[in-house]
Amino acid sequence: MRATVIHGPNDIRVEEVPDPVVRKSTDAVVRTVLACICGSDLWAYRGVAAREKGQRIGHEFLGVVESVGADVTTVKPGDLVVAPFVWSDGVCEFCAEGLQTSCPHGGFWGTPGSDGGQGEAVRVPFADGTLVQLPADAQSDPRLLTAMLALSDVMSTGHHAARAAGVRPGATVAVVGDGAVGLCGVLAAKRLGAERIIALGRHEARTAIARTFGATDVVAARGEEAVEAVRELTGGLGAHAVLEAVGTEQSMKTAIAVARDGGAVGYVGVPHGGSAGVDIGQMFDRNVSLRGGVAPARAYIPELLADVLSGAIDPSPVFDAAVPLDGVPDGYKAMDERTALKVKITF
Amino acid sequence: MRATVIHGPNDIRVEEVPDPVVRKSTDAVVRTVLACICGSDLWAYRGVAAREKGQRIGHEFLGVVESVGADVTTVKPGDLVVAPFVWSDGVCEFCAEGLQTSCPHGGFWGTPGSDGGQGEAVRVPFADGTLVQLPADAQSDPRLLTAMLALSDVMSTGHHAARAAGVRPGATVAVVGDGAVGLCGVLAAKRLGAERIIALGRHEARTAIARTFGATDVVAARGEEAVEAVRELTGGLGAHAVLEAVGTEQSMKTAIAVARDGGAVGYVGVPHGGSAGVDIGQMFDRNVSLRGGVAPARAYIPELLADVLSGAIDPSPVFDAAVPLDGVPDGYKAMDERTALKVKITF
Repeated sequence: MRATVIHGPNDIRVEEVPDPVVRKSTDAVVRTVLACICGSDLWAYRGVAAREKGQRIGHEFLGVVESVGADVTTVKPGDLVVAPFVWSDGVCEFCAEGLQTSCPHGGFWGTPGSDGGQGEAVRVPFADGTLVQLPADAQSDPRLLTAMLALSDVMSTGHHAARAAGVRPGATVAVVGDGAVGLCGVLAAKRLGAERIIALGRHEARTAIARTFGATDVVAARGEEAVEAVRELTGGLGAHAVLEAVGTEQSMKTAIAVARDGGAVGYVGVPHGGSAGVDIGQMFDRNVSLRGGVAPARAYIPELLADVLSGAIDPSPVFDAAVPLDGVPDGYKAMDERTALKVKITF
Repeated sequence: MRATVIHGPNDIRVEEVPDPVVRKSTDAVVRTVLACICGSDLWAYRGVAAREKGQRIGHEFLGVVESVGADVTTVKPGDLVVAPFVWSDGVCEFCAEGLQTSCPHGGFWGTPGSDGGQGEAVRVPFADGTLVQLPADAQSDPRLLTAMLALSDVMSTGHHAARAAGVRPGATVAVVGDGAVGLCGVLAAKRLGAERIIALGRHEARTAIARTFGATDVVAARGEEAVEAVRELTGGLGAHAVLEAVGTEQSMKTAIAVARDGGAVGYVGVPHGGSAGVDIGQMFDRNVSLRGGVAPARAYIPELLADVLSGAIDPSPVFDAAVPLDGVPDGYKAMDERTALKVKITF
C-alpha cells in the first residue's frame, strides 16, 4: 500500500510500504476512507519534534474494517469506524477511568513499528479498546464523514481544553489560538453552555469560523495588547475559563494572564515553550489553575459523536482544504505556510 | 503598644508603636490573645522576600474585640474572634464566591500602613468581612484556643492544598513538606476521606505528628529517591492528589513527579523557585493538573471551626513552642534553625 513517511524536516513523502496485516488476535486492519494533517504534525515537519528517518506519520483517520483478529468482538469487517489519536487496550485502570492516553499498552500512530494515519490502511492494536463504530450510512454523506473525522483529534482535543478549563453554563471563556483545535475549543465551550466566548486570533478567515462556532468577541492582538483587550471586555476581571491551544511560551503566558482570579487554563497545545510561559507567581496570587494535556479522545468520542449525528455540533468547517494521498506533501506545505487551516486527505 | 517590626534580614525587633484605633466606620480593633510565626515569615526574615525597613510582621492572630466602628454589625467589644491572614470586604464578587484573597479591598497584615499580627493589638479593616467569631468560653481552654489559632492560616492553607489537589474519599494522597502547613495538609486530607496518606519528610518529630494526623506512610527521602519510594508504595502509579507545601523548585518537581496520571498537585507553598520546577511536558503527557495558590482562609474558617469545636480535628500539635511577645526574635531564630516547628506567641 501507499503511506506517508517523514524523512526529515520538510521532507514528507508518499511511498510504497508493506500492507498491514493482523498480527495479534486483538488487532484489526482498517482501510482508510478519510484522514487529515494535524497542526502537531507540523512540529515534526519543521524538525522541532524529533522523528526517526522513515517513520510513518499521521494520527487521525476513519475507515472501514478490513479484517480482525480472533479476539476482536466489537467491530467486524465492513464496519465504518473512527480511531482516536492514540490506541489503548480498553481494559486497564486508566481506560476504565477515561484516561486512555495513559493506558500502559497504548501508543501513538506513527511511532516506530506502527502505521500512521496518513496511509491507505492501518493496523490497529487493541481494536476493541480503540475503535468507535460509526453509522454505516454515514459513508454517503461527505460532510458528516468530515465532521466525524474531527472526532479523532481536533474536536476531542478542543473539548478536553474546555473541560479542563472548567467551562460551565454561563461562563465567560477565552480561547487562545485560532488553529483548528482553538476553533473546536470555541465549539466545545459553546456546547458546554458558555455565555461569552472571546476568541484570540488574527487570521480573519479563521476568526470568521470562530464566530460561526459561537465566539461572541474576537481579539486580533497578541501579548500584552491581547491581555488588555480581554480584561477590558470582561470588566477588568478576565475569563473564568481559558483554553490554550497553541503551546508556545507566549500563548501560555497570555492564557494565564487573561484568566479570572480563581479560574482555570485548560491547555492542550503541545508545550514547546517549556515552563517559561507558566507564571507560577501570578497563578499563586490569583489562584489560577492549569489543567489539561493530551486529550483522551477515546473517552469523548461517544458523547461528541451523538452530538455530531444529531446536528448539535458540526466541526467540519475546520477542514478548508482537501488533497488526495499523493498531495499530502503539498498539504503540509499549505498548513506550514498557513494558507490552509486543516487539510483533509481523501482516498 | 508593643509590636514586632522587621528591620532587615535576621533583624526582628519588638518595639513600642502607636496604639491602633478605629479609623474607618468598618474597622475594629482587636486586642491580641494569641499569635504565631509562620514559615512564610521566614522568607522575609531571611531576606528572600523584600520588606521595607520598619514594616510590621505577622499575619495570624486571635483576640478580643476592643472597639468597633459605627458600621460594624457582626462583632462587638468583648467578642473572641480569629482573623484570616488577609482581610477582605466581605461584599464583593470574589468574597461572595469564597475567594476572599482576591477581594479588591483586601490586604495582607503587615503591609505598609497596616498592623501586623505579632503585636498587642491590631486594627482590622472591614471587620464584618474579615473576622470570625469564636465561642466566648474557649478563652479558658488553652488547647482549644491554640487549635483555633491554626485556622488563621496553616490549617486553612493545608485544607486549601487538599481541596485544590482534589482529595476525595478513598484517595491516595502524597504530602510534600513536613512543615506546619504540610502537617495540616495531612490532617485536611484525612478529614476529606483520604484512605492512604504518604507524608514526605525527614524530620522525625514532624513525621511523628504526621502519623498522628493520619499519615499511613512516611517517606524520609528527597528528589528522585523520594519519587521512586512513592511510586513503589503506589504500585508504580503515584498519588491521586499531591499537596505541595514547600514552594521550592525541588518540592514542585517532586510533587508533579509523584502525581498519578490524571491527578492533581494542590500547591500552597509560596513559590520561590519560579516556574523552573513546573515540568509542563510531564504534566501534559500525564494530564497532571496544578491548582492552588494563596488560601482563602476566610472561606474555610467556619467549616473548619465547626470540626475543631466538635473535636473532629485538632491542629494544635503543630505548635511545639511558645514565647511571650518579647521572645519573638528567639522564635524566628528557632524556626529558621528548624529547632521549632511553629512558635506560638502568648500575650
